[in-house]
Amino acid sequence: MKEEAMKRIKAWQDEIKAYQLALTTMSYDRLTVAPENGIDYYSEQAAYLSGVLYSIQTDPDIEKTLNELKSEELNAEQKRMIELHLKDFDRLKRIPKDDYVAYQKLCQVSEKKWEEAKIKKDYSIFEPYLLQVIAAQKKFCALRDATKEPYDILLDDYEEGMDQKKYDAFFALIKEKLLPLIHEITLKQDALRTDFLEGSWDIEKQKQMMKVLQKYLNFDPSWGYMGISAHPFTSCFSHNDVRITNAYHENMLLSSIFSLIHETGHAIYEHQIPEAYEGTVLCNVSMGIHESQSRMYENNLGRRMSFWNRNYDELVSLWPDRLKDIDQETFVRAVNSAKPSLIRTEADELTYPVHILIRYEIEKGIFDGSVDCRRLEETWNQKMKEYLGITVPDTSQGILQDVHWSDGSFGYFPTYALGSAYAAQFINAMQKDIDIDTALAYQDMASIQKWQKERIHCYGASIPSLQIIENATGESFNPQYYIEYLYNKYRDLYQIK
Amino acid sequence: MKEEAMKRIKAWQDEIKAYQLALTTMSYDRLTVAPENGIDYYSEQAAYLSGVLYSIQTDPDIEKTLNELKSEELNAEQKRMIELHLKDFDRLKRIPKDDYVAYQKLCQVSEKKWEEAKIKKDYSIFEPYLLQVIAAQKKFCALRDATKEPYDILLDDYEEGMDQKKYDAFFALIKEKLLPLIHEITLKQDALRTDFLEGSWDIEKQKQMMKVLQKYLNFDPSWGYMGISAHPFTSCFSHNDVRITNAYHENMLLSSIFSLIHETGHAIYEHQIPEAYEGTVLCNVSMGIHESQSRMYENNLGRRMSFWNRNYDELVSLWPDRLKDIDQETFVRAVNSAKPSLIRTEADELTYPVHILIRYEIEKGIFDGSVDCRRLEETWNQKMKEYLGITVPDTSQGILQDVHWSDGSFGYFPTYALGSAYAAQFINAMQKDIDIDTALAYQDMASIQKWQKERIHCYGASIPSLQIIENATGESFNPQYYIEYLYNKYRDLYQIK
Repeated sequence: MKEEAMKRIKAWQDEIKAYQLALTTMSYDRLTVAPENGIDYYSEQAAYLSGVLYSIQTDPDIEKTLNELKSEELNAEQKRMIELHLKDFDRLKRIPKDDYVAYQKLCQVSEKKWEEAKIKKDYSIFEPYLLQVIAAQKKFCALRDATKEPYDILLDDYEEGMDQKKYDAFFALIKEKLLPLIHEITLKQDALRTDFLEGSWDIEKQKQMMKVLQKYLNFDPSWGYMGISAHPFTSCFSHNDVRITNAYHENMLLSSIFSLIHETGHAIYEHQIPEAYEGTVLCNVSMGIHESQSRMYENNLGRRMSFWNRNYDELVSLWPDRLKDIDQETFVRAVNSAKPSLIRTEADELTYPVHILIRYEIEKGIFDGSVDCRRLEETWNQKMKEYLGITVPDTSQGILQDVHWSDGSFGYFPTYALGSAYAAQFINAMQKDIDIDTALAYQDMASIQKWQKERIHCYGASIPSLQIIENATGESFNPQYYIEYLYNKYRDLYQIK
Repeated sequence: MKEEAMKRIKAWQDEIKAYQLALTTMSYDRLTVAPENGIDYYSEQAAYLSGVLYSIQTDPDIEKTLNELKSEELNAEQKRMIELHLKDFDRLKRIPKDDYVAYQKLCQVSEKKWEEAKIKKDYSIFEPYLLQVIAAQKKFCALRDATKEPYDILLDDYEEGMDQKKYDAFFALIKEKLLPLIHEITLKQDALRTDFLEGSWDIEKQKQMMKVLQKYLNFDPSWGYMGISAHPFTSCFSHNDVRITNAYHENMLLSSIFSLIHETGHAIYEHQIPEAYEGTVLCNVSMGIHESQSRMYENNLGRRMSFWNRNYDELVSLWPDRLKDIDQETFVRAVNSAKPSLIRTEADELTYPVHILIRYEIEKGIFDGSVDCRRLEETWNQKMKEYLGITVPDTSQGILQDVHWSDGSFGYFPTYALGSAYAAQFINAMQKDIDIDTALAYQDMASIQKWQKERIHCYGASIPSLQIIENATGESFNPQYYIEYLYNKYRDLYQIK
């Protein structure tokens, strides 16, 4: 019985793998190179295949088999696999297929409208679609589990075990400790030089710098590829095929550099998950841990002095006229400078979590009814003013800046801040085993990646993320590492007593 | 009854569309940007989805419905659609699904082995897989129709209505009229200057020239995209999403230029087929007509003096030091020069059909048994010597140069020469309506493309290709246009009396 059932599950998983690869490839293609006018045809076919995949993923016979298997003698991995599959059934099966497919199509239109609205700087183009997406998500949450608070359901989707209570405590810390520090730093903007970063930076040269960094970070073209898209992202096709993208802006040198480092953090994670888990649910790692790996690369490693020991020379050699008089320390201090700003993805390490806080509070309010969905834009602008002291000049730099809400990814944003907090705790543990600065200075990312693999990546999704943190660091999740790290770093950098 | 049945067919076609787009996208991705190490996982998933598509495409209930519909009152397009679908059933249904899927996987391995063999210049690496592919194709032909000669079945797959008898007559003309001319020209190699094309041509500048040509040819980025791959090709995703690729070689300026023009000929065709046919079998146009459009762009238009009236200045502006002393006429004569050479895809217009002749004779011999499959490499080399007077220095420039046989595309090559012959006849008819040289000189590809659309592209596959030729040119296919065109052009160019 058990072997027969496991075989049936394996065949079912194989089916899922094929559709997932097809949809992943189609989506990556669409976001990178596809000509704009093909979108309607694409959307129709992608929605159709999503529907087929939905039917496979909600096959009641498979659910029955999975439930029967629970009483068999299984190893820990098998148990976990079944648990995760049943969680997916729970997530999907109560949503009627027609609603599911209609929602996929709605999201595609909504994303298109979001893009148009952003270009035209007109929130009213997007608003009706956003309201439909919100209504659909509320409906789905009610269908899934009417006894739970809707936003708790969504938060758990993106980070297993998290809920509003836990996030409230986390963001309270950020408000209490970081907002006053940001306020102080805002008043000391002359402490660090950043003037030399202004002006125009040739995109072909930026691309050459990417090659230097890819090599330094061991992002190997035999298993990885970097495309170009409007917003950088990472997409895992398979163990040996991990894609990232980047975006180039002539007036922002640091954007492509830190996007590359960030996405490479994601990519290395995907590539170091055990190959045995390839294409299975044991690859569906937590978003929080994922963001911890990318933000660790971007901030905890990429903004260190030692990271630039070798890489800064390469940068200077690309723009000798611009950078030859700027020493490495001045450059590294500049890439760590903090200042309240409009755009999350370009935000510095210190103000970043405040951007997330704003989104968290709005999402929470949308789902508990305390925020009026017809006044989301005003709410956004008020919170930007309140927390960061910034006036939003136009909606494309305000509520329209991120794609996430257009496809209903509510509950996703908070994992970004959580990931940064995980990262701080991981780095603290890593430092006990590895002299990180020496590794970076001597171009030895391999040692760091070996540590990541043995302590974090090796688990895939075979254990919950909070358990990974305990195993990797020897203690349970503690946001104090993050708060203290930022607090000390920025007081020091801006010489605040 | 009829409406119900047509609805069922429509739903079935919609299913097929989705899988075809998925497989097209996955294949394009694989051939352009995918990291090499992901190929095994990709192959498995693509084979799986091909199998699902196969099951849909051979659904016996649908075949029954299609046959029932034949007796209903239908318009010409509906009749043709049903005819083409039933032809596809005939092609597929007698091949057992397991054999079909196994064959897809075999082809993927075989293609990989072909690539390895080509790189290592060792035919023996590829040979055992080629033999398996041949054996499978022979087996499939026998299953499909044991009463027909296998190669006739394959020739008809690629060009409806063609068979060995017709191709024999066509290639006999080429042997009779062109081989002696090629021999004469080989002895007059000092008649045209080509020396200035030698040396190195910066790839970034080649890419800039591509932008000039894309614009000139109306290849619009809103519905088209050009990627990079080992060998140039065109792939139609949908009416408004047509992809081409190109390959850049530092030592060959003309290669990327004429590849772009060639592939754009394919792309314009796909984009100008009526949108109403999108994703249906009425888009599956003949390979011969397809090649006629690409080779017409490449040769009959792209190698004309008037084509370069504006484009040559752009070329000179990219390489002023190299080209400022070469006048347009010298350049255009050089791009029309002919000389027996090793590689089909780089061959000039005159010797090109001889490369196809060689492949045709070998394919014919493989399937009628007159060529020993264990001596294919020797046979190839002998024919190159006999027809073109060339000694093949290594197998990568001989039998291993083309991908086609690795995935069993026997019967495909002959359509390349046939397409060139169609093109000559089309150009002859077009000239009666349009002053082609004026259109080209004044950057007016639109007039030419309008003619193509109204005379050729508008049909899609709604009528057979030989009928398209009659409709477009007012007479049935006549290869004499091609032979005379080449004969006169090259006698004139090389001043042969």
